[in-house]
Amino acid sequence: MDLAALIEKLREFARERDWERYHTPKNLAMAMSVEMAELVEHFQWLTPEESLAAKDNPAKITAIGEEMADVLLYLVRLADVMDVDLEQVALRKIGLNALKYPPDPQKAKL
Amino acid sequence: MDLAALIEKLREFARERDWERYHTPKNLAMAMSVEMAELVEHFQWLTPEESLAAKDNPAKITAIGEEMADVLLYLVRLADVMDVDLEQVALRKIGLNALKYPPDPQKAKL
Amino acid sequence: MDLAALIEKLREFARERDWERYHTPKNLAMAMSVEMAELVEHFQWLTPEESLAAKDNPAKITAIGEEMADVLLYLVRLADVMDVDLEQVALRKIGLNALKYPPDPQKAKL
Amino acid sequence: MDLAALIEKLREFARERDWERYHTPKNLAMAMSVEMAELVEHFQWLTPEESLAAKDNPAKITAIGEEMADVLLYLVRLADVMDVDLEQVALRKIGLNALKYPPDPQKAKL
Repeated sequence: MDLAALIEKLREFARERDWERYHTPKNLAMAMSVEMAELVEHFQWLTPEESLAAKDNPAKITAIGEEMADVLLYLVRLADVMDVDLEQVALRKIGLNALKYPPDPQKAKL
Repeated sequence: MDLAALIEKLREFARERDWERYHTPKNLAMAMSVEMAELVEHFQWLTPEESLAAKDNPAKITAIGEEMADVLLYLVRLADVMDVDLEQVALRKIGLNALKYPPDPQKAKL
Repeated sequence: MDLAALIEKLREFARERDWERYHTPKNLAMAMSVEMAELVEHFQWLTPEESLAAKDNPAKITAIGEEMADVLLYLVRLADVMDVDLEQVALRKIGLNALKYPPDPQKAKL
Repeated sequence: MDLAALIEKLREFARERDWERYHTPKNLAMAMSVEMAELVEHFQWLTPEESLAAKDNPAKITAIGEEMADVLLYLVRLADVMDVDLEQVALRKIGLNALKYPPDPQKAKL
């Protein structure tokens, strides 16, 4: 599956519920930030080590995965509404980040 | 391109910079929420209509796209660190949402 | 009442529950951002006009006020943990903002 | 100083710049969430111990204090726009939290 398939599903989902009028970029960004915080909430009181260990707790990792999916769904929906090619921009952004933060030469050769 | 390719690139990116020790789920969730807010910032004072029109402003849509990409990159990196299959969970979540919010019968048949 | 009284109450609250060990600045900032999103959630699908009208809906304004209070409580607790004099910094920040954004001369004389 | 003085200053600040039309509850909540993230950003890559130590770094604590003040200013402005008595709700919320999380009897008597 790729993001194009997800875009199509979410477009249909919004159309079938007459939700397109709510899906302004402003509203979608707000809603995404709320889902984002529901993900953050899982980690707020954990030590770094406990946050790593959460992946071995089936109930926790299921809940965390669902919050991550919620963020992705709004992100993909916003990309569709704004005609942004998310994958292409993500690849370009990795290139920009590589210029901004050159690799540690000691590590890069590993 | 699919998310698997992005995962691979980000894994290498972190390794080459010795950043793996910073990439706890707790830290990645925090960093993602900061990128999320940089996206929200573009829309904070806009009317709903202005937020829709932003997609026709080349400078704005480039900047907005890059903030969206930043969110995606952290999301994909977190999914890798936590062993979450983001695409599979996203599809499952759409199914759960469809049960939670049944389609409007008038709209669904269009 | 002033913020000093609130600081004292929250300090005691944490002590009585043995929560001081959780109250690192990092954790408090995360928890505050989660409460912040619970406030944002009330407004995410509203038009600007509907968001203004929320103050006349008793159930909504009670819920919104409680989310605002949650943000304030974490902010005050963080200020205590970090030895920040919130009121003094807020007054200074208003001064800095006034330099950054000079008033509209037409409006300032009203 | 109390919050009432801050409310008055911010009301005048908005009036002098003709910003009242932007200060819908929806926009203020968004803007506050952006300031919130600028606060979170200071802590995102820190260990819990480093986040505690930040209070002893003059440059850092000044920057952190200013982000905290920005959150407070938007919170106070939103409270004014929505006619919420923030201090009164905060006191009530502490009472509700005390019922929800009873104190540890061992600690409470210290």
